[in-house]
Amino acid sequence: MIDQNALPFSFEIYQAHNYQDTCRAIVTMITRGAGAIGAAAGFAMAQAFIEGSAKMEFGTPEFPEFLASARKEIEATRPTARNLFYATEKVYNAGLKSVENAVREAQVLAEQNIADAKQIGENGSILVKSGSRILTHCNAGWLGFVDYGSALAPLYIAKEQGKEFFVYADETRPRNQGARLTAWELQNEGIPHKIVPDNAGAHLMSRGMIDFVIVGADRIAANGDTANKIGTFEKAIVAKEFGIPFYVAVPFSTIDFSLSNGTKIPIEERSEDEVLSYTGPDSEGVMRTIRMASPGSHAMNPAFDVTPARFITGFITEKGILKPDELSSFKIEIENA
Amino acid sequence: MIDQNALPFSFEIYQAHNYQDTCRAIVTMITRGAGAIGAAAGFAMAQAFIEGSAKMEFGTPEFPEFLASARKEIEATRPTARNLFYATEKVYNAGLKSVENAVREAQVLAEQNIADAKQIGENGSILVKSGSRILTHCNAGWLGFVDYGSALAPLYIAKEQGKEFFVYADETRPRNQGARLTAWELQNEGIPHKIVPDNAGAHLMSRGMIDFVIVGADRIAANGDTANKIGTFEKAIVAKEFGIPFYVAVPFSTIDFSLSNGTKIPIEERSEDEVLSYTGPDSEGVMRTIRMASPGSHAMNPAFDVTPARFITGFITEKGILKPDELSSFKIEIENA
Repeated sequence: MIDQNALPFSFEIYQAHNYQDTCRAIVTMITRGAGAIGAAAGFAMAQAFIEGSAKMEFGTPEFPEFLASARKEIEATRPTARNLFYATEKVYNAGLKSVENAVREAQVLAEQNIADAKQIGENGSILVKSGSRILTHCNAGWLGFVDYGSALAPLYIAKEQGKEFFVYADETRPRNQGARLTAWELQNEGIPHKIVPDNAGAHLMSRGMIDFVIVGADRIAANGDTANKIGTFEKAIVAKEFGIPFYVAVPFSTIDFSLSNGTKIPIEERSEDEVLSYTGPDSEGVMRTIRMASPGSHAMNPAFDVTPARFITGFITEKGILKPDELSSFKIEIENA
Repeated sequence: MIDQNALPFSFEIYQAHNYQDTCRAIVTMITRGAGAIGAAAGFAMAQAFIEGSAKMEFGTPEFPEFLASARKEIEATRPTARNLFYATEKVYNAGLKSVENAVREAQVLAEQNIADAKQIGENGSILVKSGSRILTHCNAGWLGFVDYGSALAPLYIAKEQGKEFFVYADETRPRNQGARLTAWELQNEGIPHKIVPDNAGAHLMSRGMIDFVIVGADRIAANGDTANKIGTFEKAIVAKEFGIPFYVAVPFSTIDFSLSNGTKIPIEERSEDEVLSYTGPDSEGVMRTIRMASPGSHAMNPAFDVTPARFITGFITEKGILKPDELSSFKIEIENA
């Protein structure tokens, strides 16, 4: 997988030789983004089947124990990410038949991820007009998926359609996924953009500089409450204040129908070091880690927040653009898929 | 003056030998914060009188030309800061009588700054209860004034009163005045605190973790519209959404009664480098400047935003805690002071 911690300063490939390597890649955010985490987790589960079957017989009692333990380990990597649990469960269940079936299912999920993202792009592209000025938070582009992305997919399809528009990419502290990854993707796609400090949202909106906001999501409850990168909730409140449409772009695999609302979504708390320090290249390209904050002070680092459904104009999904209360009508169809 | 760009990683004193040195200190933010900018601008104007009188006769036509040019230069350093214009005008007018009078006026303004800040602290301390959890943005402490500060003064007085409370200091991108300066001040004052990413505001408020918000200001229009560090407007909108009181602490010298509302407050746009790069010490204490964002992408860097008066619960001033519509009743009194 692409090492997203090295990007955009260098392009490196991380090879995960076993499921623990893959877990490490998810925890350390070598791979990140709802869709990419899901795909990686699916492959991690498949790796566990392969590794287990190399060590013990498929039918022995040790085999399911090994798998259950591996599954627990995979699921503990990023507790907020719905796609992780979705993929792990699918591959686990497929593997009960055979190891080959687990591998096949992980592959199918990764391909489904691309197909869903492309369809999200097609469905959402109608919102992008020539001249649109769009604000996005964090990175929900092709780096965060197997391809296309969620929030950025409609922009990429709109670009293919020949539309010209402008993107404001929130810096997205503390890990700067917007300044590092979204900006880099947009450069690669040739889409005009500027990085803005997260603090500038209300200022831009108050000056009429934003037509709509589009973000991805890490987990959505049945009622549409949406967990996404910390700061999303602020943008949603501010957008509502100014009457600016706020869209969440996601595949249905991000929706957790087992949760009636967002209060039960676990919020990952990450290391304070991500707030207090930062790693980047100096003027000679040497990677340096520097202190950003007063030595001796501590920081909080909640990785996500939960935006209540009433702040969300629409969900851009592979099944169309839906209002929050329309999501649950797809519950049966999705669960039987 | 204390070099606030070096803080908190090293404590250095910057000596301004002439008014241009002082201008440079304001532009580069060696000194910063509404009150400190005002005091520095007053001294810069006094320096110009001293320098002018050393070069030419007080009564000659060149003298007022030199002073008018110096005043223009001083006023161009930070266009949003009201206290800068307030102090420059006061010292300029005082100097029309004599050079000594200009110097004396600059000194009086600096002392008034301390007295006002202390009174703001006394008046605001009533809001701070034992157990209060307070969010602040940017740095409006003693570093930003001659002493005490505006937003932090009530906390320092409350601490002297023996109250125990907790402060969340917004990081305040892009220059991290919260993470660097407010955190450092709070450490020095022994006040328990944590740094939080600017993005975390809505999350903290939605979880009932903030009792009130307190910030300073750079310029306030007659109707109470408030220009302050970029991001203030977001916090105010979010606080209102959750019914959390939002206070602005300022001396009256920050109020610009010549502006009926905030739409006419000029917003300083600073260099994009402040967003794209950051300077701090590496693990060996060597100061390094590193790239924070994707090379090749550009950034916007508006330094301030304007929060409309309706989002502000009260102004903590040296004359008491006032509602936005009560400010203008003090107009005559202030202008004749």
